[in-house]
Amino acid sequence: MAQNIYDKREFFEGYSQLSRSVHGLDGAAEWGSIRAVLPDLSDKRIVDLGCGFGWFARHAAGQGAKSVLGLDISERMIARARQETADATIRYDIADLEHLELPGASFDLAYSSLAFHYIEDFPRLVATIHRALAPGADFVFTIEHPIYMAPVMPMWTTDGEGRRIWPLDGYSREGQRTTDWLAKGVVKYHRTLGTTLNALIAAGFSIRHVEEWRPSEEQLMDHPEWAEEMDRPMFLLIAAQR
Amino acid sequence: MAQNIYDKREFFEGYSQLSRSVHGLDGAAEWGSIRAVLPDLSDKRIVDLGCGFGWFARHAAGQGAKSVLGLDISERMIARARQETADATIRYDIADLEHLELPGASFDLAYSSLAFHYIEDFPRLVATIHRALAPGADFVFTIEHPIYMAPVMPMWTTDGEGRRIWPLDGYSREGQRTTDWLAKGVVKYHRTLGTTLNALIAAGFSIRHVEEWRPSEEQLMDHPEWAEEMDRPMFLLIAAQR
Repeated sequence: MAQNIYDKREFFEGYSQLSRSVHGLDGAAEWGSIRAVLPDLSDKRIVDLGCGFGWFARHAAGQGAKSVLGLDISERMIARARQETADATIRYDIADLEHLELPGASFDLAYSSLAFHYIEDFPRLVATIHRALAPGADFVFTIEHPIYMAPVMPMWTTDGEGRRIWPLDGYSREGQRTTDWLAKGVVKYHRTLGTTLNALIAAGFSIRHVEEWRPSEEQLMDHPEWAEEMDRPMFLLIAAQR
Repeated sequence: MAQNIYDKREFFEGYSQLSRSVHGLDGAAEWGSIRAVLPDLSDKRIVDLGCGFGWFARHAAGQGAKSVLGLDISERMIARARQETADATIRYDIADLEHLELPGASFDLAYSSLAFHYIEDFPRLVATIHRALAPGADFVFTIEHPIYMAPVMPMWTTDGEGRRIWPLDGYSREGQRTTDWLAKGVVKYHRTLGTTLNALIAAGFSIRHVEEWRPSEEQLMDHPEWAEEMDRPMFLLIAAQR
C-alpha cells in the first residue's frame, strides 16, 4: 500500500494551510497552465486521481461534466471533500492508486494533480488508466518535476560566487526519495522525465503537451518571490491522449 | 546564418581528437542508446543533419541504406567526410540547418547527432524535416540535455558538505548560451525539454521515445569516471515518427 501521508495529523494540518487548500484551484500557481490544456469538460465522464478536498471535482461539475469520480487515499480529505460538495454528479471514494482498479472504457478524462510522484509502480497505474479511458479520451496530470525530486538535498544553495543554484545530483538514479515536507519522512518516487513519458507511450498514449511549469511574466509581477522558479522547474504538466 | 564553429581551427583540432572523432560511433558513449531506437536501415533513404566526418552515413550505407545525404555547415568536416568515403549511396553537402530546404516526402529517416542545440529556430527546422519525411518515417536525434545546457556555469561544483553537485540555474530562461568548449565563444541555444517536445508535436510528429542518456552498468564498469553522469544527464535522445 502507498504511504498515506495526508492522514498524518501534522501533514494534514500543514497541507490544509497551503494556498491551494485555502483558495482552491486559483491558489495553485500552475492552474492556468493546466486549464490551458484541459479539454472542454461539459458532458465528460471524469476521474480525478488524488482528488484531495475536491476542488477540481467541483470545478468540473460546474463546467457541466456528466460525472466526476474523485479518488483519494486520505480518509480525512475524502471526508472533507464530501462535506463541502453538494452535487449529485460527483462521487468520492477512498482508493490507493498503487492498487487501483477501474471499469474499462468508462471515462473521457483522467485528471491528476501532484499525486503520481507518491506512486512506486507508475507503469501499472498508467496501464489501468489507459484501459479505463474511452478511445480518444484525455489524460492530463501534474507531478513534481524530476529536477525538483532528484537531489539528495532539494534546497536552494549558492555557488562560490554567491549565485543561487539548485544542487542537482542523482537525476539518473531513480527510486525512492524521502523528504521532510509538512511532516517527517514523506516518501516519493523519483523518475526521470524520459521514464515518465516512455511509460505513457508504452501504455498506448500519445503525448500531446509537456510543460515544465514556470511563472508567467504577469505572475512574476504579482509574485516577485517566484523568480527562483525560473532557475529550476518545480512542476511537470503532461497532457496525453488515449 | 548559424555560427560555424567547426571551421575554427582550434575547435576543429580539438573536435578531431574526441573519442567519437577518432573511433567513430563506437567512441560515442550514447551510440548504444541511439542504435536501440533506430529502425532497420536497409533500403532506407536517410538524411543526416550535422553529419560531421560521415561516421553515421558510412554505418547506414553498410547496413544497406538505399541512399544517405549527409549535411553539415562545416566545409572542413564535409571535405574530410568525402575523403574517407567511397560509397556511391552517400552524398555530402554543405548546408546551414538554420536555413535548410529539403525536397518533400523524400526520406524514410532523418537522423541528427548533437547538432540541433546550435540551432536558434528549432520550430522552422522541425517543420522542414517533417515535410521532407515520407508518412510513417522516423526522426531520431540527440542534443545536449537542457539540464546540461542551462547553467550560467555549466561545471561540476560541490555543496557545503563536499558533495558533487550540478549547479543548475536558468533552466526556464531559454535562449542563447555562450560557452568555451574546445574554442572560446561557442554559441548554443537552450530550450527546455518541454519546448523541444512541443515543437515536434506541433509539427505533426508522434513522440516514440525520450531518453536522458545515462551510462549502463556495463559502461560504468569500463569507465568508472562516468559515475558523474548519473548526477545530471548530458545527452537527450528523442525518437519520433512522422
